[in-house]
Amino acid sequence: MSTVVPPPDPEADPRVKAVFDDIRATRKSDFINNMWLWLAFDADLLERTWAEVKAVMATPSALDPLVKEMLYIAVSVSNGCGYCIHSHTASAKAKGMTEAQHADLLRVISLAAKTNQLATALQVPVDPAFDATGEN
Amino acid sequence: MSTVVPPPDPEADPRVKAVFDDIRATRKSDFINNMWLWLAFDADLLERTWAEVKAVMATPSALDPLVKEMLYIAVSVSNGCGYCIHSHTASAKAKGMTEAQHADLLRVISLAAKTNQLATALQVPVDPAFDATGEN
Amino acid sequence: MSTVVPPPDPEADPRVKAVFDDIRATRKSDFINNMWLWLAFDADLLERTWAEVKAVMATPSALDPLVKEMLYIAVSVSNGCGYCIHSHTASAKAKGMTEAQHADLLRVISLAAKTNQLATALQVPVDPAFDATGEN
Amino acid sequence: MSTVVPPPDPEADPRVKAVFDDIRATRKSDFINNMWLWLAFDADLLERTWAEVKAVMATPSALDPLVKEMLYIAVSVSNGCGYCIHSHTASAKAKGMTEAQHADLLRVISLAAKTNQLATALQVPVDPAFDATGEN
Amino acid sequence: MSTVVPPPDPEADPRVKAVFDDIRATRKSDFINNMWLWLAFDADLLERTWAEVKAVMATPSALDPLVKEMLYIAVSVSNGCGYCIHSHTASAKAKGMTEAQHADLLRVISLAAKTNQLATALQVPVDPAFDATGEN
Amino acid sequence: MSTVVPPPDPEADPRVKAVFDDIRATRKSDFINNMWLWLAFDADLLERTWAEVKAVMATPSALDPLVKEMLYIAVSVSNGCGYCIHSHTASAKAKGMTEAQHADLLRVISLAAKTNQLATALQVPVDPAFDATGEN
Repeated sequence: MSTVVPPPDPEADPRVKAVFDDIRATRKSDFINNMWLWLAFDADLLERTWAEVKAVMATPSALDPLVKEMLYIAVSVSNGCGYCIHSHTASAKAKGMTEAQHADLLRVISLAAKTNQLATALQVPVDPAFDATGEN
Repeated sequence: MSTVVPPPDPEADPRVKAVFDDIRATRKSDFINNMWLWLAFDADLLERTWAEVKAVMATPSALDPLVKEMLYIAVSVSNGCGYCIHSHTASAKAKGMTEAQHADLLRVISLAAKTNQLATALQVPVDPAFDATGEN
Repeated sequence: MSTVVPPPDPEADPRVKAVFDDIRATRKSDFINNMWLWLAFDADLLERTWAEVKAVMATPSALDPLVKEMLYIAVSVSNGCGYCIHSHTASAKAKGMTEAQHADLLRVISLAAKTNQLATALQVPVDPAFDATGEN
Repeated sequence: MSTVVPPPDPEADPRVKAVFDDIRATRKSDFINNMWLWLAFDADLLERTWAEVKAVMATPSALDPLVKEMLYIAVSVSNGCGYCIHSHTASAKAKGMTEAQHADLLRVISLAAKTNQLATALQVPVDPAFDATGEN
Repeated sequence: MSTVVPPPDPEADPRVKAVFDDIRATRKSDFINNMWLWLAFDADLLERTWAEVKAVMATPSALDPLVKEMLYIAVSVSNGCGYCIHSHTASAKAKGMTEAQHADLLRVISLAAKTNQLATALQVPVDPAFDATGEN
Repeated sequence: MSTVVPPPDPEADPRVKAVFDDIRATRKSDFINNMWLWLAFDADLLERTWAEVKAVMATPSALDPLVKEMLYIAVSVSNGCGYCIHSHTASAKAKGMTEAQHADLLRVISLAAKTNQLATALQVPVDPAFDATGEN
């Protein structure tokens, strides 16, 4: 069940086809996952979303590709996005995440959620030493 | 302003002193940040929380210490915990996070939050290919 | 699967029947969606919830009915409530939301989630100019 | 207090100056709010964020500009982003949001959060009638 | 700083005065906390909110008043609402919450947030035994 | 569907068997729910998680066991963790939660989510009277 109907023949729209071709070329795979099929209900939204995902996730940058996937998982878990957790865990594994790294990822994000609750419940005042501006 | 009163002389309690000594030894620093001062209102909670933070964050594991700090930031931002964002950004910088890495971290976590909204709003069905069990 | 059992014959309870009759009359439809069937496990909760939904969503007010549905979707997506996303997207479509408006809605709420992360991660101080009281 | 230091003279960087000039021209105002000053710590992040905000929020689209601001507020409140709530409430008022509309906005988003909790706590199954694909 | 201006002389409005009088009578105290002063910017919103808070929190029901305050804290911490955490922690203390109970509350809600992350990250399938309807 | 494969014969690992034996002994039941089967993909994570759950939830403490289950539900609903809502609602019922208490729980947590939105949207300043430290 979903809230929009993905187009029955998405690549009939040349804008959608161009995005799908770029996804296949970038990922060196014929697999187009549902996220892109569903976003194809609006070509503009599809184009912009893919452009950003490609720029951030599929372009060399200051962080390692696997680290970026694990950060994506961390945010997706916090937001409870089942689809995103599935897709980015699969991507992280495809990029080499070992079972030990996966377990460590879970240890860190679950501990963070736990201490977030403690700091928030106590309303702990921020230490002046943490202020990047040095002006606090 | 906070919801509990940190003890005026926390190290008068030998259980608190033992934790604070271990924090100082582990971090090789005399600085005890407010989180621990506030948690000292209950020695048991302080001991357990520090034991877990030490085991997960200050013990060599499958993930790099800096990566763990960035994951901590990702979760803390998603949960809107100001204290935690400040303290773990400071820790990440202390562990060598460059400004370029910081900007990249922000790019990834903000994109993740964005696509989380899209997948959730569309209620995109999970691709069977993502199922780790292969049974779906 | 759910956490309570909806009553097998909910309208046998006159309080439930009165609410269901009002839902049908207000919406000019015989369809009672699952939310109300499940809430019927407790007549008081059902009555109060429907009274408030009717007052806020089905009564003319300062905002347009379709705008109110889109706001409802925005909150429901942020909270990851699948049921609510489905039901209010259906309501918004019934009130005339076009596919172009739907796509625009998704653009705005996903951008908002993205910049929320940026402002929170940077802990940007609020500009005094934004203070409604003018006293900051 | 914040986690990065905004550049002391941001417009000395021509990329930052170009963005700030465009913000001023688009908004017909000399006021640059802190969000942009802080994002200027990384010119790329500033450019991309502004480009997207301009495209979505400052370009005519299927939704009314004031409606888009109210949706932004709804998401920002759900995510607890104080900065964003302040800045977009100020924007909504600048675009004509009346006090009655503001109160109505609060009624809708707080009711949505309430019924989100109810549907989630009950784990109410989605009605097949809500499936856009008609395939459920 | 806030997003609306509370009325300078709120009790000049008889609807506001009636609510404030009822708050004072119900709580047997002259103290009107800021939440109500701010909500007074819209008399309808004030009346409805207080009526519901009074019905749920200040009326004998199936749960103990202190338990209800602790549940309120749990939700408010999860949503990161600083104001609500402060006000309901004060209320819980006024209703007799001991320091040991406060620490126990923190242990439970922080553990819950932690295991929420684990179950969500693993996307653990719900056991059929948990289905209240027995139909799964 | 899930993101890890639970071990096909988990109790072949003596560390897993020891945890499962302790779960059965502690709960006086042969039923091992999926959460523990899935966590068994990493023995360390399983051991630590169970140790903490046992210490907090299955050990006499300042709060009543049923109250702790209801707090767990409150957090799990706020975080949208379907698995956790199901498992802890089942636990609460097993510990005696009546239908009237369940309805009251829903009334409190949904009202809390509602007023959280109001206080956050208004950015109501915290009353100095709520400061536990008395220093504000």
